[in-house]
Amino acid sequence: MNSHERKFDQELAELKQRLIRMAATAEAMIDKTIRELVDRDEQAAEPIGMYEDELNRLQIEIDELGMLLLATQQPVAADLRFIIAATKINSELERIGDLVVNITENVHVLLQQPELKPLIDIPRMADLARKMVRDSLDAFVRGDVLLAQAAIMMDDQVDALKEQVLRELLTYMMADPRSIERAMALILISRHLERIGDHATNIAEDVIYMVQGRDVRHPRTPRQRPEQNQG
Amino acid sequence: MNSHERKFDQELAELKQRLIRMAATAEAMIDKTIRELVDRDEQAAEPIGMYEDELNRLQIEIDELGMLLLATQQPVAADLRFIIAATKINSELERIGDLVVNITENVHVLLQQPELKPLIDIPRMADLARKMVRDSLDAFVRGDVLLAQAAIMMDDQVDALKEQVLRELLTYMMADPRSIERAMALILISRHLERIGDHATNIAEDVIYMVQGRDVRHPRTPRQRPEQNQG
Repeated sequence: MNSHERKFDQELAELKQRLIRMAATAEAMIDKTIRELVDRDEQAAEPIGMYEDELNRLQIEIDELGMLLLATQQPVAADLRFIIAATKINSELERIGDLVVNITENVHVLLQQPELKPLIDIPRMADLARKMVRDSLDAFVRGDVLLAQAAIMMDDQVDALKEQVLRELLTYMMADPRSIERAMALILISRHLERIGDHATNIAEDVIYMVQGRDVRHPRTPRQRPEQNQG
Repeated sequence: MNSHERKFDQELAELKQRLIRMAATAEAMIDKTIRELVDRDEQAAEPIGMYEDELNRLQIEIDELGMLLLATQQPVAADLRFIIAATKINSELERIGDLVVNITENVHVLLQQPELKPLIDIPRMADLARKMVRDSLDAFVRGDVLLAQAAIMMDDQVDALKEQVLRELLTYMMADPRSIERAMALILISRHLERIGDHATNIAEDVIYMVQGRDVRHPRTPRQRPEQNQG
């Protein structure tokens, strides 16, 4: 391996390291905000905006490094797919951060009012969503298709919990109008967690494409229908 | 211009054409589903799934063509940024399609029950979101930064309408528990429309980056803070 190849490999490793740091930040954000919700204790000492700034900074760095490598190294095959996957995963992680910020706003509303009910399904959703983020990133780091597929499978559980949360909170709302605002905040939190699961699913799909070089999205979409829908 | 360059230019034009077709499909989906909601008339003859299949098919084609051009043409500078923008815009448009499918499910629930109230803000949100999709795509096609910025500005109106819809429907819910399920469906529709606006904003930001070669996201994030947040 010559020194030019060695430098390129180092830059790919750097890209990977930054994505790992982004994912760890996103996970920590989910953990922090749901802990505050469950413990009913806002930890103002570490504002969520600090984590968000870190994600935003890493996102720009990863995009710039990815573009630089595409432009100067003109990678092909596996290296090209790795860099494209990195830039896509990058966007997913940044959006997960945005969703946690949305959750934090709803938590803030909830903590200013009495507790509506002990929370069970929402912390479970958060645990699942966090595990999906971690596993899909581990799958990326190791190029592990099976782990990526396992992360995708978890999304069904997250979706089922979201429906359960909605049904339960609708009954609270109907029973007592004073519960409506808090129930709504909890429903919106569950929706944000579901979307975090969706972003983790996107990451896992990007990993499978990166490793296998074929698309796993839309398995039911016919691939050869050239002129059918153009009317 | 030699024949190789001409072929590359044709392929870039083909990429652009497919994105235009995707955006037109996404716009038609928004229009159709909100019209069904407002007119209280589900047009089962043209199921939304047909549009969704078209988006999914175009998404895969655009991704494959983009990867092929990156691998075989090794583009730099403006061409590289164009192809990267195309693959990102591609994902945004596909997700807009997913959101319209979610709206359709809520519309289906609403049309099986009596009308809760005449709708004003939700059709306005839909018009704005659709215009944002169109303008951000036009901005992409023309490389028009001002139009992209105008699309981004519209997002504030969409967000304000979303808050207004929430506040109004909360009062309906509190006044009459029988309105809760329908009010919830309308709130979720407004959230989906807001997210469509977010995706259009992402497209517009990609366009600005493509044209200017600099990042317009996170303008308040300090760009030079190398080791500060790593503790």
